[in-house]
Amino acid sequence: MSKVIAVNAGSSTLKFKLFEMPAEEVVAEGVIERIALPDAHVEIKYGDGQKFEQVTEVKDHEAAIQILLDQLLDLKIINDYNEINGVGHRVVAGGEYFDKSVVITPEVLEKIESISEFAPLHEPANVLGIKAFKKILPDIISVAVFDTAFHATMPEKNYLYSLPYEYYDKYKARKYGAHGISYRYVSQRTAELLGKPVEDLNLIVMHLGAGASICAVKGGKSYDTSMGFTPVTGVTMATRSGDVDPSLLAYVMEKEGMTDIEDMIDVLNHKSGLLGISGVSADMRDVEKVQDTNHRAKIAREIYVNRIVRYIGTYLAELGGADAIVFTAGVGENSITIRKEVTDQLHYFGIGVDEEKNNVRGVERDISAAGSKIKTMLVPTNEELMIVRDVVELAKESK
Amino acid sequence: MSKVIAVNAGSSTLKFKLFEMPAEEVVAEGVIERIALPDAHVEIKYGDGQKFEQVTEVKDHEAAIQILLDQLLDLKIINDYNEINGVGHRVVAGGEYFDKSVVITPEVLEKIESISEFAPLHEPANVLGIKAFKKILPDIISVAVFDTAFHATMPEKNYLYSLPYEYYDKYKARKYGAHGISYRYVSQRTAELLGKPVEDLNLIVMHLGAGASICAVKGGKSYDTSMGFTPVTGVTMATRSGDVDPSLLAYVMEKEGMTDIEDMIDVLNHKSGLLGISGVSADMRDVEKVQDTNHRAKIAREIYVNRIVRYIGTYLAELGGADAIVFTAGVGENSITIRKEVTDQLHYFGIGVDEEKNNVRGVERDISAAGSKIKTMLVPTNEELMIVRDVVELAKESK
Repeated sequence: MSKVIAVNAGSSTLKFKLFEMPAEEVVAEGVIERIALPDAHVEIKYGDGQKFEQVTEVKDHEAAIQILLDQLLDLKIINDYNEINGVGHRVVAGGEYFDKSVVITPEVLEKIESISEFAPLHEPANVLGIKAFKKILPDIISVAVFDTAFHATMPEKNYLYSLPYEYYDKYKARKYGAHGISYRYVSQRTAELLGKPVEDLNLIVMHLGAGASICAVKGGKSYDTSMGFTPVTGVTMATRSGDVDPSLLAYVMEKEGMTDIEDMIDVLNHKSGLLGISGVSADMRDVEKVQDTNHRAKIAREIYVNRIVRYIGTYLAELGGADAIVFTAGVGENSITIRKEVTDQLHYFGIGVDEEKNNVRGVERDISAAGSKIKTMLVPTNEELMIVRDVVELAKESK
Repeated sequence: MSKVIAVNAGSSTLKFKLFEMPAEEVVAEGVIERIALPDAHVEIKYGDGQKFEQVTEVKDHEAAIQILLDQLLDLKIINDYNEINGVGHRVVAGGEYFDKSVVITPEVLEKIESISEFAPLHEPANVLGIKAFKKILPDIISVAVFDTAFHATMPEKNYLYSLPYEYYDKYKARKYGAHGISYRYVSQRTAELLGKPVEDLNLIVMHLGAGASICAVKGGKSYDTSMGFTPVTGVTMATRSGDVDPSLLAYVMEKEGMTDIEDMIDVLNHKSGLLGISGVSADMRDVEKVQDTNHRAKIAREIYVNRIVRYIGTYLAELGGADAIVFTAGVGENSITIRKEVTDQLHYFGIGVDEEKNNVRGVERDISAAGSKIKTMLVPTNEELMIVRDVVELAKESK
């Protein structure tokens, strides 16, 4: 018997999913929110739909993990800390150092810390999570699974910007992309569903969550992706802008009396996207509700769909065609209307959904209309499973 | 008999083309460069391949026009100032005010001056040119032809960015595009060559000069274009970056110790693109020459081609297919290899060139491979002709 835990540490949150391996069964999952605030919130789902909730003070990430493990004992999900044999940490940025998951050694941790400037909002939190687990469970294997690693296969022409080459040479300023763990899972799973080796397939995967991106997957490898140096570019997201003309930013900064570009980048990350256009909400469901009477909500949705359509065209051109386009993550898995509207605009390429097959949420299935030249698939993502699989794999290798 | 002059005034240059109308014959064309410097250079081509050149002091734009007109007299290209019946000025930015060419009245000039912040590098020079001509030839019709006007038909979802809507409401921060005069000419001319009404055609036009952009033309109207709020975004250009992640700019600024975003925008405009990647030259011909031995030159060219391919895919998706893709402007008209490489990567869409037909420079012709589903056309642009046609048209209307 062996349990492996997948961890995603944010600056004030800690999400986890505990798996029984190799059965790949989820035995518990949950989140601790508002870490370092007096009213932190602990939530653990387990067993047969049971849920544990608590509001308490949680000083820091180490305290969060201590509370989590003690609660897992209390709830008899584990009988002993030692039942947990491995931990996999989701790490946002791997820079050019990490093109695959690695066992975390002191040297690896140092590297991760050294590239945290690529993701200053998330990477330090990932490091906190790693250190806290190391302290409390020092003897188990600890693995870093990078959200950028899958994109290490992008060709130079796709990851370089048309900027002075020195910026790449000196500062590694290039496209890294994100959602790589999701793309790796979804492209493998899509190949299984299609009954073909992933090496023989060209796929375009749309990871449409609060953060959203699109990836051209060529023979199982990332060929190009819509997020860039950071996750702010690409398609329209919940609160992130996606692609924007940088000289417009200079113009707006002058108008608004902003002098620090970081303030503008903050607007691009937190006040743009669906929220910024609609003025209603960052949540697609709220925007949809009012679109008939609210022009800004209507146009926000139109833009959201349009930017996805644009990237599908872009990647069909880059890949020279595709076997399937694949919807995943929050909006991708659950919005029947977004899937319908996106594919309706792609009829020219022989893409379309069957209305009945499309009329589901979060189900694994082929939703293509009969006679589609390019299939449309719905494949819910499972990043945590990918993380614990990597832990198990690396544990075997390091034996 | 009637002569009309098309003028393109830059900050230190004045280009002109003098037409005999309605015959649309060019009777003289040329440029005055290094205005306001002691060694300004005047060049006039006329007649049967004759050329006049002079290096002299040219104090300002008014002096440049005076020299030009006197020289036209001296060379007996005109016998009297009064032979010139109209002047058309290319104006870079029309903002949301101007969706077509207009006769320049004091009110119009005021509007143009008020929106010069949209194009601070070019618009003030355009205004200088307008004022100087008004002073020297006060009685002839003077028309402003805007490079953005053609794009006034773009739908909201294509011209809005996914930014806080207030930036559009308050500051008119949106996509305006450029090269509109060229797109209008080329799309009309392509329709003539194809023998079909432009209203019935979907075209994707690639204006590939030192500045380069791509336009999706739906039924003769701009539907979307790759340049944005300013001409810095879109495809890779001679010295301009095209699309880039704004948060990479914040990162590089910090690394380079830059505090003013305008310095970064200057890098994006003048030190990026082919020049920035290759480190060799902003001129495609120079980059091509060394690509076999210089990796950065090779990758610069690959990126240049890739960004065009990406946008063709984007616009095929937005338009739901196209009747033809069209090459125009410097690189588009003259680079046989770029046309070949771009179209080679678009075979999936039924696009391809016939090697023999493609083996020309600056000729009007269909260069499609036999059996192409989407035609590939080579149509040299003629912005000045478009400008003088608008002058003649507006002169008729205002009579």
